[in-house]
Amino acid sequence: MEFRESRVCWIKDIVVVVTGENMETMKSIIQKYQHKGISLVEAGATRHRSIFNGLKALAGDQAYCRLSRPEVVIIHDAVRPFFEEDDLLKVVRAAREHGAAGATRPLVSTVISPSTEGCLDHSLERARYRASEMPQAFLFDVIYEAYQQCSGYDLEFGTECLQLALKYCHANAKLVEGSPDLWKVTYKRDLYAAESIIKERISQKICIVMDMKEEKEHAGYLLETVLKNELNHVKVTSVVPCHDGSNIQHIILEQCYSFVCMNVMTTDFQNTQKLLGMLEESNLSVLYPVVVVSVHFLDFELGPLSQKMESLMWIRKFAVEVKKRNILLCGLIINYSQDEQKLQESLRQGAVIIAALIKERNSALLGQLLVA
Amino acid sequence: MEFRESRVCWIKDIVVVVTGENMETMKSIIQKYQHKGISLVEAGATRHRSIFNGLKALAGDQAYCRLSRPEVVIIHDAVRPFFEEDDLLKVVRAAREHGAAGATRPLVSTVISPSTEGCLDHSLERARYRASEMPQAFLFDVIYEAYQQCSGYDLEFGTECLQLALKYCHANAKLVEGSPDLWKVTYKRDLYAAESIIKERISQKICIVMDMKEEKEHAGYLLETVLKNELNHVKVTSVVPCHDGSNIQHIILEQCYSFVCMNVMTTDFQNTQKLLGMLEESNLSVLYPVVVVSVHFLDFELGPLSQKMESLMWIRKFAVEVKKRNILLCGLIINYSQDEQKLQESLRQGAVIIAALIKERNSALLGQLLVA
Repeated sequence: MEFRESRVCWIKDIVVVVTGENMETMKSIIQKYQHKGISLVEAGATRHRSIFNGLKALAGDQAYCRLSRPEVVIIHDAVRPFFEEDDLLKVVRAAREHGAAGATRPLVSTVISPSTEGCLDHSLERARYRASEMPQAFLFDVIYEAYQQCSGYDLEFGTECLQLALKYCHANAKLVEGSPDLWKVTYKRDLYAAESIIKERISQKICIVMDMKEEKEHAGYLLETVLKNELNHVKVTSVVPCHDGSNIQHIILEQCYSFVCMNVMTTDFQNTQKLLGMLEESNLSVLYPVVVVSVHFLDFELGPLSQKMESLMWIRKFAVEVKKRNILLCGLIINYSQDEQKLQESLRQGAVIIAALIKERNSALLGQLLVA
Repeated sequence: MEFRESRVCWIKDIVVVVTGENMETMKSIIQKYQHKGISLVEAGATRHRSIFNGLKALAGDQAYCRLSRPEVVIIHDAVRPFFEEDDLLKVVRAAREHGAAGATRPLVSTVISPSTEGCLDHSLERARYRASEMPQAFLFDVIYEAYQQCSGYDLEFGTECLQLALKYCHANAKLVEGSPDLWKVTYKRDLYAAESIIKERISQKICIVMDMKEEKEHAGYLLETVLKNELNHVKVTSVVPCHDGSNIQHIILEQCYSFVCMNVMTTDFQNTQKLLGMLEESNLSVLYPVVVVSVHFLDFELGPLSQKMESLMWIRKFAVEVKKRNILLCGLIINYSQDEQKLQESLRQGAVIIAALIKERNSALLGQLLVA
C-alpha cells in the first residue's frame, strides 16, 4: 500500500480488486492508513476475470455503481509497489494516442522453449524480446470492449491485457520503458529487497534539531559536519527551533522520517521532548516509523560516565510511550573531550551509530542509551 | 565468492574467468579467503568468448596448462551466488546422459515481442517458456567442440551455451528445475536481497554458552526457553563448556556464527573471554562476521544500575580488539528481578535485542552495553 491517492492529484477513482477472504483485511488497511477515494471490488478466479470485475465497476452502467466511466484507465498490480508518477504519466499519454500502452523492461535471463520431453527446443534471442510489466493504461472503451469480446479461454489462461486490446480492438499497444523498480515482488528475496528499498527511501533525509541554548561552533555543529561526511548519499539539514516550532513543523510536513536531536545539558532533554510532542501531534508516523536519536554531550574524563548515564534513564520510559505512536527513540552519548583527536573519533563513531539506527529502523533498540 | 572448493569434494578444478583489470583483485580475494585449487583465466570481450577461454584452459592441449581435460564441465555465473550442491548434481547427472543440461525457472513476467515501431507485436504464452539460468553442465568434448565450431556471430551476440551444444553438436540439452535462489543478481535491489539471504543463512544457529558456575534453573536456562519461543525459525542450542573447551570448539567447527554468552557474576566476564579466545584461534570469522552477545544478570532494584554498568565498560575496549578478527561483541544486561512478571518481561526484551543483533550483524553497535 505504498500508493496514496493524494500523491497523484489527477487520478479520480481507485478500484482495488481483492479476494473475498481478504476483503475485511483490506477495509481495515484503508481505514488504518486513511486512504481516500477507494472502491473495493471482489476478485474473480483468474487474473483476467479479476481485472474484468474492476472494469465493470468503473463502466458506470451498473445500477449500484457510484463511479463514472473514465476516459483512460490504468491497470496495476499490488506486487509492483515501487512506481513513480512519471511511470503513470508515460503510459497514460501513450494510451491516449495509441489506445493502449504498457511498461516493459529488458529480459534478465535468456528465454527458452522446452520440448515436450523437457529438453531444449530453441532459445529466443534475448535482445528481440522484453518483459511485460505494469502499469498499463488504456482508453477505457478499448479495454472494456476487449474484455466483453474475449473468449472463456482468454479469461481462464491469458496473462496479457495488451494482447487482448490488440486481438479484439486492434489497438497497437505502445511499449514504454519502465523504471527498474517496477519488478514483480514474487519470492521471499523480493520482500527482503522491498524492505531495504523502503528503508533506504525514508532514510534519505536527516534533520538535526539544534539546542536553542547552544552556542555557535558547539559540538552540535561539529556533529553535523561529520554526519555530512559519513552519509554522503543523505541530505542532512540542521535547524534551530523557532519559538512556536513552526520551522520544525514545516520539516515534518515534508516527510522527514529521521531526527537527531541535540541536548546541551546532560540532565536536560527539553529539546527532545518538544520534538517528540510535535511528532506525536503530526500524522507522520502513520505509514512508516520515525527515528529520533536524542544526543547528549559529556566529557568522559570529568567524572564517572555511569552517574551521568543514570540521569538519562528517562529515555527508556519515554521510548515505551512514544513507541505507541510508531516513533523509535534512542539515546546517544558523545564524549565531548578536550582532546581534539578523541573528540573527532567520538563524533565519527556517533555518526556511524546514528547512520545504523536510521538505516535499520529496528524497534528492538528503542530506549537504549548508546555510547560513542 | 560464496562457493568454496572444499564444500563439494567431487569437483576437481575450478577455473575463474576474470577481466584483466580485476585480475589482481581476484588474486587477493583468493588469498584472503584461502580458496584452494583455483586457476585464473583472462576474460574475452563477450560472454561466449570468456567461456571459451575458460574451456581452453581445461582442454589440456596447451603447453603451459597444468589442468587435465575433464569428462564433465559445469559452467556457472558469479552473479548467481546461491546454489546448492544438489543443483550441481542434477545438471551433472543429466549432462552425463544427454551431453548437455541446464537449470531453468518459470517466467515471472509475460514475455512480449515488440514491433520495429515499439508497439506490441505479439506476446508469448507464459506457461510454454522458461527462463534459462545457471549452472549448466556439459560433456566436455561436446561443449568444447561446439565452441570450436561456432561462428563469430555466435561468439559476439549469443547468450545461450545450451543452444550452441544443440546447434553444433546436436546435443539435446536436458532442462532441470532450478531452485528459486538461482536468480541473477543484477540490480541494486538484488544486492539488498543477497545481503539479507546471507545474513539469514548465517543466523540460523545460535549457541548459548552457559556459565560453569551457574546453578540449574538459573536465568541462563530461562533465557534459553524465551529465545526458543521468540526465534522459532532458528536452532537454539545451549552448552556448558567442558574443561578443555572441546565441546565449544566442536560447535565452532560446525560453522555457528552467533553466540550468546552467560556470565553469572557482574564483574566476571571469564566465560565471554574464554569464548572470544577460542573464536580468535579458529578460522570461523574469515568469511562472515561472528556475533557474540555477552549477557550479564543484575537485579535493578538492588542499587543503582549505573555503578554496575561501570564495571562492564571493559566490553567497549575488548570489542575494538576482537573487531580486528571480524568478531562483533556486544553486552546485554538483563534485569534479574525477584518479581516474576518483571523478570519474564526483561527476558523477553533481552531475546528481542539478541535477535536484532544477530540478524542485523551491524558493526556500528559493537561494544555497546544494552539494557533489557
